[in-house]
Amino acid sequence: MTEHKLPADIERTSLSIITKELEALGIALEPENAPVVKRVIHTTADFDYAKNLYISSGAVALGAAALAKGTPIITDTNMARAGVSKPGLAKCGGEVLCFMAEPEVAEAAKLAGTTRAVAAVKKAAAMYPTGIFAVGNAPTALLALCEEMENNPDFRPALIVGVPVGFVNVVESKELLVKTCRKFSVPVIAAMGRKGGSNVAAAICNALIYTAADMLDPTNRGWQG
Amino acid sequence: MTEHKLPADIERTSLSIITKELEALGIALEPENAPVVKRVIHTTADFDYAKNLYISSGAVALGAAALAKGTPIITDTNMARAGVSKPGLAKCGGEVLCFMAEPEVAEAAKLAGTTRAVAAVKKAAAMYPTGIFAVGNAPTALLALCEEMENNPDFRPALIVGVPVGFVNVVESKELLVKTCRKFSVPVIAAMGRKGGSNVAAAICNALIYTAADMLDPTNRGWQG
Repeated sequence: MTEHKLPADIERTSLSIITKELEALGIALEPENAPVVKRVIHTTADFDYAKNLYISSGAVALGAAALAKGTPIITDTNMARAGVSKPGLAKCGGEVLCFMAEPEVAEAAKLAGTTRAVAAVKKAAAMYPTGIFAVGNAPTALLALCEEMENNPDFRPALIVGVPVGFVNVVESKELLVKTCRKFSVPVIAAMGRKGGSNVAAAICNALIYTAADMLDPTNRGWQG
Repeated sequence: MTEHKLPADIERTSLSIITKELEALGIALEPENAPVVKRVIHTTADFDYAKNLYISSGAVALGAAALAKGTPIITDTNMARAGVSKPGLAKCGGEVLCFMAEPEVAEAAKLAGTTRAVAAVKKAAAMYPTGIFAVGNAPTALLALCEEMENNPDFRPALIVGVPVGFVNVVESKELLVKTCRKFSVPVIAAMGRKGGSNVAAAICNALIYTAADMLDPTNRGWQG
């Protein structure tokens, strides 16, 4: 066991192991989607995501292009926010925001008899109607995003990442998300079924950030895809 | 789909679904360990953890008792730190710390030619030799903890949570951790194999925090176990 291997070397080795094991499993990824799927497997060591991830046509390119223009990412938890690569974002000139812990959001949730996740989404939707929304925890946040898309013609996110995890309302919330995004031509990446999480949300954002950084500077990394 | 269900109700329903599905799978958990295993499944929707988690005898009770005395948790990533329940910790009078992002740690890592994770562990080990250490990301952090246990007789953590995820050095680092903890009678919870993550580290800490809060106030929750 070599202790002094550089993190970047370990990442490259890990991704090549993942590529080989996907081949052995007979799974061929769409080249455009491969960086996202592989990074989620890298984050979870769970090959189920090779089958679970729904990625609408062009979503990776559109999400990365939005990031390359400095579009902000809004997450539903501070945990997902903490997992988004700050050096990567800095290269794109973007930022990652989360309104969950704001006293104003807690107050709005209380008044409306809803969750803080919903109140945080409503605030973010008003502030960033064409932002990138990443939900790794709260199915109610996804439902609120669907409601906003239905009711507000100005709310058209550059991308929605919908990967809450869990056993209650989660599967249905992701199915509704995909349907609603399709209706309004909003790019979407969702983990169908029960699985997902803040780590998965952050991993998907990071794959898009690295793709955006490659767009801005093609000499940047090189292992992606 | 009911949008206005309270988070606490959803959690209770989720845990009862997990309990039923574990029964259907023929998996009987040790009653003491059940809160930890179920919370990890709740966080990942991945029943593999019912088999992957190694929990040394008494580790749950010892970890919870340490938390109930206000023992700090030190994590290897800010993402794991963000996932640890602050209201729960407040009930125990404890805190959660992470040294990864400190400029001093980056400097020490550069000088020693090692990872920031290792430098952060070395700093934390000196400051909190009987703290709770939770590693969800860096196998090098686990190796550093093992080295500290071997070389420093004062370094005897109240508990080590060792759940890094990945494809390179990860499996071996967790095997060495379990062996070294056994040698020095240090309580340990580890996710054997490749799986784990910052979310899993946080989930294990939270299960212990809720157990500690129940110890301090038995009327507190009630669903645990």
